[in-house]
Amino acid sequence: MLMKLNPNNPIGVFDSGVGGLTVARAISERLPLENIIYFGDTARVPYGVKSPETISRYATQITEFLLRQKVKVLIVACNTMAAVAYGAIKDLSSVPVLDVVDAGARSAVAETHNKYVGVIGTPATINSNAYTRAINTYDPKITVFSQPCPLFVPLVEEGWLDHQVTRLTAQEYLKPVVAQNIDTLVLGCTHYPLLKPLLREVLGNQITLVDSARTIARETEELLRKNSLQNSQEKPSEYRFYVTDVPLRFKEIGERFLGRTLSNITVVKW
Amino acid sequence: MLMKLNPNNPIGVFDSGVGGLTVARAISERLPLENIIYFGDTARVPYGVKSPETISRYATQITEFLLRQKVKVLIVACNTMAAVAYGAIKDLSSVPVLDVVDAGARSAVAETHNKYVGVIGTPATINSNAYTRAINTYDPKITVFSQPCPLFVPLVEEGWLDHQVTRLTAQEYLKPVVAQNIDTLVLGCTHYPLLKPLLREVLGNQITLVDSARTIARETEELLRKNSLQNSQEKPSEYRFYVTDVPLRFKEIGERFLGRTLSNITVVKW
Repeated sequence: MLMKLNPNNPIGVFDSGVGGLTVARAISERLPLENIIYFGDTARVPYGVKSPETISRYATQITEFLLRQKVKVLIVACNTMAAVAYGAIKDLSSVPVLDVVDAGARSAVAETHNKYVGVIGTPATINSNAYTRAINTYDPKITVFSQPCPLFVPLVEEGWLDHQVTRLTAQEYLKPVVAQNIDTLVLGCTHYPLLKPLLREVLGNQITLVDSARTIARETEELLRKNSLQNSQEKPSEYRFYVTDVPLRFKEIGERFLGRTLSNITVVKW
Repeated sequence: MLMKLNPNNPIGVFDSGVGGLTVARAISERLPLENIIYFGDTARVPYGVKSPETISRYATQITEFLLRQKVKVLIVACNTMAAVAYGAIKDLSSVPVLDVVDAGARSAVAETHNKYVGVIGTPATINSNAYTRAINTYDPKITVFSQPCPLFVPLVEEGWLDHQVTRLTAQEYLKPVVAQNIDTLVLGCTHYPLLKPLLREVLGNQITLVDSARTIARETEELLRKNSLQNSQEKPSEYRFYVTDVPLRFKEIGERFLGRTLSNITVVKW
């Protein structure tokens, strides 16, 4: 199957909204010659409190859309979709699939020394237990403590990255996890890396923060190399962004995640 | 047109999610003999940060759905849809339409003495300027100060109704509005009435809080009476709930809004 893929085709990255742009950014930094198609379901975001069934249905719809765009690899940048719908996406896909939950789990396994790992994420991600399963597949001796943090996404979107309200919220959410003597904390949502400085302040310097964006960029590079799928075209890489809505403050928030100007945006009306 | 309506048909109430259940509750308390069909777009909630175009498209789809269910009146319980899409809903509807923005505006006009009124709501509601327009239609001499409060909905859904984080957030959002010497504050989102005790604490007792649920229940009663549309059947009233997803904690959150047990729920897959 992989034999048929064209190395000059784009990498497909998708998320429930703008958060996955942090993953697109990490991939573009590591693989500057690759073209990227990004899909953000901005009309139906957030996924983190939806039912597993609805999350799977929407993830399937996005996967089909990106496969029609002839992507050579699919990156599930949304932790919630990866946690709940990875199987459905994988079954459907004729191209390799990488996801942030697996990447985050691998990083956590590599980082922990005392084998106590914390995971924070949306309610749907945490309820799915996907991180615990993935981490224990790589190392069954690791104990995982999970904590849903539903207010972190709205706080990041409000731009309160260094605000007393966010600090108090973080203290409340993280207290039970920190009490478990963890040495590693997985940021199991693409919004959370923007809170790193504040989380660092709340947690102190003894706990390693795992952010899967860089890990997945490295895994993407390996995957392309192993399968001889690196883009060989000698022209500037091209980025295309598909969204289901251009919500209020979209460009401002999106550019905060992407770290550069957003252009070439197409709205898909679902 | 109204001549053809059957008084025994249900009242249609709709919202982007569960918040409009506070309106359904107020109607059921005032009009216990009426049947109610409630539609909550729980898969695509929240609407408050979406673009006006997407909000209108979704509002149209819900209106068509409820008209097919043969409702005798439509109640737009969502401030965001009322603010952005009232015209589209009204144009489409063959039955009378009442909405929470108009109801809230009328109440504010009746309550204010010094003619300085504050309005809080989602970003889409506030950006639409619908409250200012509606209030000034009834009294052009009133000055309206508006403030978007995007974190209030997630805080209510998290259940942090009496929490220091919510208190600090309210202080920050309300400071500029209170500085304008308002004597009346419109709670321009169906989630906000659950924050009344905390808002009362932050605002003191000098500011009247306007919550449109009771006003719209009274307007519904008047409308039915004037058009001889009161339900005359001598059987217990029936409630049906249509939602597009049964998200995590749906029943818990929904029952907090409705004030009674939620049953008779049908999922519509959009």
